[in-house]
Amino acid sequence: MSASAVPTVAGLGEVLQLFRGRPSLTRADVMHLTGLSRSTVNQRLDALLSAALVVPSGEGSPTGGRPASRFTFHHDRGVLLVADIGATGMRTALCDLRGTVLAERERAIDVAAGPDPVLTTADAMFGELLAGAGRGTAEVFGIGLDVPGPVDFDSGQVVSPPIMSGWDRYDIPGWFAGRYACPVLVDKDVNAMAFGEQRSVYPDVRQLLMIKAGTGIGAGMILGGEIYRGADGAAGDIGHIQVTVEDAGTEPVCRCGNTGCVEAYAGGWAMVRDLREAGKDVTTVDDAVALVRTGDLLAVRLARRAGRIIGHAVADSVSLINPRVVVIGGQLARIEEQLFAGIREMVYRRSLPLATRSLQIVATRLDNRSGLIGLALLLADGIFAPGRVEDLVARG
Amino acid sequence: MSASAVPTVAGLGEVLQLFRGRPSLTRADVMHLTGLSRSTVNQRLDALLSAALVVPSGEGSPTGGRPASRFTFHHDRGVLLVADIGATGMRTALCDLRGTVLAERERAIDVAAGPDPVLTTADAMFGELLAGAGRGTAEVFGIGLDVPGPVDFDSGQVVSPPIMSGWDRYDIPGWFAGRYACPVLVDKDVNAMAFGEQRSVYPDVRQLLMIKAGTGIGAGMILGGEIYRGADGAAGDIGHIQVTVEDAGTEPVCRCGNTGCVEAYAGGWAMVRDLREAGKDVTTVDDAVALVRTGDLLAVRLARRAGRIIGHAVADSVSLINPRVVVIGGQLARIEEQLFAGIREMVYRRSLPLATRSLQIVATRLDNRSGLIGLALLLADGIFAPGRVEDLVARG
Repeated sequence: MSASAVPTVAGLGEVLQLFRGRPSLTRADVMHLTGLSRSTVNQRLDALLSAALVVPSGEGSPTGGRPASRFTFHHDRGVLLVADIGATGMRTALCDLRGTVLAERERAIDVAAGPDPVLTTADAMFGELLAGAGRGTAEVFGIGLDVPGPVDFDSGQVVSPPIMSGWDRYDIPGWFAGRYACPVLVDKDVNAMAFGEQRSVYPDVRQLLMIKAGTGIGAGMILGGEIYRGADGAAGDIGHIQVTVEDAGTEPVCRCGNTGCVEAYAGGWAMVRDLREAGKDVTTVDDAVALVRTGDLLAVRLARRAGRIIGHAVADSVSLINPRVVVIGGQLARIEEQLFAGIREMVYRRSLPLATRSLQIVATRLDNRSGLIGLALLLADGIFAPGRVEDLVARG
Repeated sequence: MSASAVPTVAGLGEVLQLFRGRPSLTRADVMHLTGLSRSTVNQRLDALLSAALVVPSGEGSPTGGRPASRFTFHHDRGVLLVADIGATGMRTALCDLRGTVLAERERAIDVAAGPDPVLTTADAMFGELLAGAGRGTAEVFGIGLDVPGPVDFDSGQVVSPPIMSGWDRYDIPGWFAGRYACPVLVDKDVNAMAFGEQRSVYPDVRQLLMIKAGTGIGAGMILGGEIYRGADGAAGDIGHIQVTVEDAGTEPVCRCGNTGCVEAYAGGWAMVRDLREAGKDVTTVDDAVALVRTGDLLAVRLARRAGRIIGHAVADSVSLINPRVVVIGGQLARIEEQLFAGIREMVYRRSLPLATRSLQIVATRLDNRSGLIGLALLLADGIFAPGRVEDLVARG
């Protein structure tokens, strides 16, 4: 069959993709995996070697004078800078091109102070991370940030964020444009977390629900193997699903202005409020988590109730999207014992048996790094996407 | 660039696809759209013409002896048989290859009688439809059925259906195998409805939520432009989301065994139950709908309450998946005035403004044919998928 005007399947980007997913490959491996001829494989590999995106592999390299027979993705060719911006704190990391965290830093912030002070802090931390690793800004292949609010992913703009005053429609990539000559992506925190979990822990799972239980409550989703963002980037807003709690008395007012939201009972901020009203000496969500872990009876009771209420929203979500895995992350995931019993109780009580018989409900295994890792992997996928590798190679 | 072992983009199936989406095309149009050479276009078109999948178009055909210059998809080359199986009734239709309904029939059934009597009825109706149109079984290109329960789409088996006793793991395609020599597909009713709506009414919408409000309450979803079925085919089970109703007294028991489900208040069966308990002379959901339309005060009050309760589940779904369009279908959609006010009230009260500012909440425009049309379009997509057209052409 003729193939005129038809793009080939295995261009430079597709060949690089083979290396990104494997420890090392020979020329014969590449021929076998792509169906390309020896001369075309040599041509592709020469281009990737000259751009140093692929390098001879240490293992399998002969000790004599013959050229190395195995090649590997040069994950140290450049670095990625990522920032996971929360309501009250920011974590930043320097990652290699495989998404491995090389160094990280954490700092307290107030996201409601607005974009300029927060991004200035991020930029300062990025500078410290680069200096600490002895890398220059020219080596930065990409910058990724996540925020606790809805994002228009294509433009990188935060849109109508309930808790990020001053950020609406702010051009975050534009802020970095004069400082770094690399792509900048912005996503909602829960989307980055879901992607990090799925890609690094559950690569074979195509439907994953990620719950962030921290100051607020939110969800990110991998549906059909891809991040699902919804029509306006507003998908996953489970913190404001309305629940009714039998022993609650008056419904508490939520940060969104409504009453009876999941977050208004089970968010970290609501637990702090309830503990303070009862005279406990807590100020932050971390204080509340610590109090639960000491076994304080009221704190434990509130944690169990939070589990059942989050479980109510998780059960609704399981009924609607029928995921294979639900991953719980965020600060409250550290009170796993008290929280998970309540979540599981509600899911198994409320959802269709068909939807729960193969369902796993698990705590994150990435500690508090799922967002950082997700951002780095999302950046790498964009930078090394077929069609863009040609540009990287052309620039040298 | 070499293209060895690489599939071409514009094979027979891709060329046929161009014709399926347009009234008619010239050879030059096909060259322009595919980038294929004139000789390759001629070769593809000859194959499609000889299999009569494409025919010379009436319009633009010269009156003299020269060959026609325009070609069109031969939508009358064969027929599709589809059956929309509900709890108490079945609709069947004979469709052309564009999914247009040519003839239809409706019959009362009891789905709980099990597969054999129900499929025997479907088969008899298919026979009547073919005979009425003067078409033979050899002309049937595909059979599609939808059912009110979860389906494993790949095998065509119903799985763990709550209201379809005797259907669990039943091999529906196998039942038809001896009768027709064509593909048989089975899907959940709400998935077929969502697909029919999206493909024929909202082709540019990539996130659509279809609510079936009939005897039961269910949802189908188009996410990222595709039917979303979930990890076990159980997605969209919103009828059993738990709601709390302030003036309800004791929570009603649902068909699923739980209490307080959306369906136990707002499903057609629950409205019939409540009306009968109040002494009204109603037996079927259609009776209840008719009573609402006469303006009966109790029936109207129950319809408004049903709207708010369905609206509660729709609001949760909007918060989670952020669709662009919500389409309401099913028998209860015929009481649009009373139902929609309640649905809209709850969605605008409970969901994030970002998720609702561009949201449309609309009644189906396909009357009760969205499932039938969706099945026919899904069948045609499968039959004419790239890679399968070659087989059709080879068989002649």
